[in-house]
Amino acid sequence: MSKGPTTRVKVEILDGDKVSRREDAVVTEEPLELRLEWPGRAAEPLVVTMRTPGSDFELAAGFCLNEGFSASPRTVAYCTDIRLSREQQFNTVTISLDAPPDREPVSRYGVTSAACGVCGQQSLEELAERDYAPVDDVQVEADVVRRLPELLREAQPTFGRTGGLHAAGLFTGTGERVLVREDVGRHNAVDKVVGWTVLNQHDRTGQVLAVSGRAGYEIVQKAVAAGIGMVVAVGAPSSLAVDLAKRFDVTLAGFARGERCVVYSRPDRITH
Amino acid sequence: MSKGPTTRVKVEILDGDKVSRREDAVVTEEPLELRLEWPGRAAEPLVVTMRTPGSDFELAAGFCLNEGFSASPRTVAYCTDIRLSREQQFNTVTISLDAPPDREPVSRYGVTSAACGVCGQQSLEELAERDYAPVDDVQVEADVVRRLPELLREAQPTFGRTGGLHAAGLFTGTGERVLVREDVGRHNAVDKVVGWTVLNQHDRTGQVLAVSGRAGYEIVQKAVAAGIGMVVAVGAPSSLAVDLAKRFDVTLAGFARGERCVVYSRPDRITH
Repeated sequence: MSKGPTTRVKVEILDGDKVSRREDAVVTEEPLELRLEWPGRAAEPLVVTMRTPGSDFELAAGFCLNEGFSASPRTVAYCTDIRLSREQQFNTVTISLDAPPDREPVSRYGVTSAACGVCGQQSLEELAERDYAPVDDVQVEADVVRRLPELLREAQPTFGRTGGLHAAGLFTGTGERVLVREDVGRHNAVDKVVGWTVLNQHDRTGQVLAVSGRAGYEIVQKAVAAGIGMVVAVGAPSSLAVDLAKRFDVTLAGFARGERCVVYSRPDRITH
Repeated sequence: MSKGPTTRVKVEILDGDKVSRREDAVVTEEPLELRLEWPGRAAEPLVVTMRTPGSDFELAAGFCLNEGFSASPRTVAYCTDIRLSREQQFNTVTISLDAPPDREPVSRYGVTSAACGVCGQQSLEELAERDYAPVDDVQVEADVVRRLPELLREAQPTFGRTGGLHAAGLFTGTGERVLVREDVGRHNAVDKVVGWTVLNQHDRTGQVLAVSGRAGYEIVQKAVAAGIGMVVAVGAPSSLAVDLAKRFDVTLAGFARGERCVVYSRPDRITH
């Protein structure tokens, strides 16, 4: 069986001089192997990601879109390799395409693909070489932007129980929640959100991606790949996230809380 | 030139109805390519990690130890490939070994190595197959454990300026700081700390690893590889971090603050 988003563990709590024992919930972290196949090619492993079980097909569909393989996979399914245990089957997801992928799958991190002498600039150039559609020219009121972190937290059922989860959410330009997903990895939470829109053929136009915590390179990259024009982070962005947002015309806001937020790129899309 | 840990960016601050423009500091995030060479084999790319520039050689030495390639690389140096720009050279580090690595380098994430049907159990078994020495049987007082997050924060110069950095620190069993390193990635901060001990031939016996934020699988794995017997996290651990800590006899504590902390494994090493 697939495991739940939290796991019960026995803990010892040291509180001043007192020691107590009890059961506690921690966020579940399990490896997920994604495989890709298309007519004429058997499924091959693509990547292994440490994720929180749940919404695995969304994660796979989001990853598939993000990597530029396909925006509409034919099917996404758990592995049925009978040599694997039930648990292993639920930790392996195969993405089937109708045709060869739009972009040749290569390891993003590994031995085979690591380009010589990458640097920030080169990575951005590599991204620019990909055939991205322009991002959505969304307009959102400042008050909505500043309320997004609160709206995100309200929709995080597991965080309260474990304190260990990131969240990503898609919201309309007026602050209505489309969906929120949680994961031990922030990038997985974004993949799950985008993947849900893929599997449900949901139109992302006019919508905003909100993420708990910080925004690094990979978060903005995923917004670009999904054509989302605005990213709002609860925390701070990195330098490469700001560079990427500027280069691909994404509005990037951070430290959104209360009356205040900091805008790092394309502030003209936030209206007053 | 290598970039600093923070980068200045122009921002727009929306505060209620007021809009102000100013310069702000964000944490620098840049890709670092690690290459590995040994006598008879030219340098080949090993991994690309998004990191905060600074302590790059420590990061490389820590990664090298963690992956089981070598606990004592001959040299660690920036790339001197004259075809690369200065900036690219400072984003490429070559690790030279005296002999072939103790363990064959394979991509941890990529197309070529992704094992079929990995699951939590299997990953732990893969780790168990590696030839780890037993971890250190450190003893630490509960008061020291609970003070570590505060001691870690006191030593985080960049966090205050950017709000965007993780930290990892090595402390003695009585709470004296050995060193603290910051990075946009928590795993990189741990690699930098461990790498510093490698490059400085520092004895890790009796010492404790403290990390800001949460503790996932990879943090405990790095402690195991470095023989460190206790990990204290400011935040929550994941299920796989707890499993791994139990299996490899690491004391894992989380939510350490004020008078309180939660211990997930081997609480007997924390004395009262």
